[in-house]
Amino acid sequence: MLDYVKNPYEIEKKSFEIITKELGNKVFPEDEGKVIKRIIHTTADFEYADITVIRDGTLDKAKDAIRKGINIITDTKMAMAGINKRKLSEYGVQVFNYVGDEDVARKAKEERITRSIVAMRKAVKENPYGIFVIGNAPTALFELIRQVKEGKSNPSLIVGVPVGFVGAKESKEELLKLDIPYIVTRGRKGGSTVAAAIINAILYMI
Amino acid sequence: MLDYVKNPYEIEKKSFEIITKELGNKVFPEDEGKVIKRIIHTTADFEYADITVIRDGTLDKAKDAIRKGINIITDTKMAMAGINKRKLSEYGVQVFNYVGDEDVARKAKEERITRSIVAMRKAVKENPYGIFVIGNAPTALFELIRQVKEGKSNPSLIVGVPVGFVGAKESKEELLKLDIPYIVTRGRKGGSTVAAAIINAILYMI
Repeated sequence: MLDYVKNPYEIEKKSFEIITKELGNKVFPEDEGKVIKRIIHTTADFEYADITVIRDGTLDKAKDAIRKGINIITDTKMAMAGINKRKLSEYGVQVFNYVGDEDVARKAKEERITRSIVAMRKAVKENPYGIFVIGNAPTALFELIRQVKEGKSNPSLIVGVPVGFVGAKESKEELLKLDIPYIVTRGRKGGSTVAAAIINAILYMI
Repeated sequence: MLDYVKNPYEIEKKSFEIITKELGNKVFPEDEGKVIKRIIHTTADFEYADITVIRDGTLDKAKDAIRKGINIITDTKMAMAGINKRKLSEYGVQVFNYVGDEDVARKAKEERITRSIVAMRKAVKENPYGIFVIGNAPTALFELIRQVKEGKSNPSLIVGVPVGFVGAKESKEELLKLDIPYIVTRGRKGGSTVAAAIINAILYMI
């Protein structure tokens, strides 16, 4: 049992070879393929090849945004933890998450709404043109979409991959109607690991 | 579109109702069901109902370990971020992750092995009886299993849910052979969100 691959580069290389092979006839444009394969690498779930939607031109715009040092806002600490912040800092990009802030917690309790909603309002105020990464909370995505529609936010990119049974699917369908750069996993699936994988995939293309 | 559920308790309640309904005939013992449903809540992936293996007696032992203040070690910062540390601290439980430590990075580079392996060696030295939570790296799980076999570690619980294409499945099959409390997701699937969901599910039962 101790005879296993211990070299991290070999592990990653072999993993992507297996994924490419098992995708078979499903071939994607180069950059898009890199995003989708990294999501599958993170989840071992090939359904993402069918449900991932990347709006035309989004990946080039996303790379530009990172090169310009546009900040990233995540809806969870987990997504924040999974993003390669060392590499982002080379471009001056900072990653923010407001969900643990005391004022956010207090306001959410008062209004009996999710902390994700309150955190998103704060995020939009501080970074109206940011890269928004939502891997968990449909309520965060709904709130962000509302702010975009009201002209209060014009995100450089929305990674909209909240997961779950109440609102996840619906929030993503709303995002697909917006005229901005987005990456979406349709339906119920998604998550913080998926969200982080998407940002890292873009980062590794630059 | 703005008519969506904004109350966090309602969202969670409704989610678990949907999950229970869609599980249909698949009924589990009470505590086991809570773990499996929280995994599905986190992933929106019902396959976890079929691949999750919880060794007999493990959940009672895991609850005891937390009540006793046994520390938790995770293989990634993401799993660490997803665990409810505020609630754990009520029992005096601390959560550690060594993968970002400088000495770990240096040693991994020298030996050309994953940081996960080196971090696990450090973890076992500092917490031989800890609760080990492995959501990402098969190499971390292989190393931990080796240490258990050599009598250097006797974990209170191993959450063995690494994800991926190289070693994940194999490492979990090895774990299933050990005579210790474990929770495993067989095959390729798993991940940091799954790992954190399992610990949180146990925590919310206490």
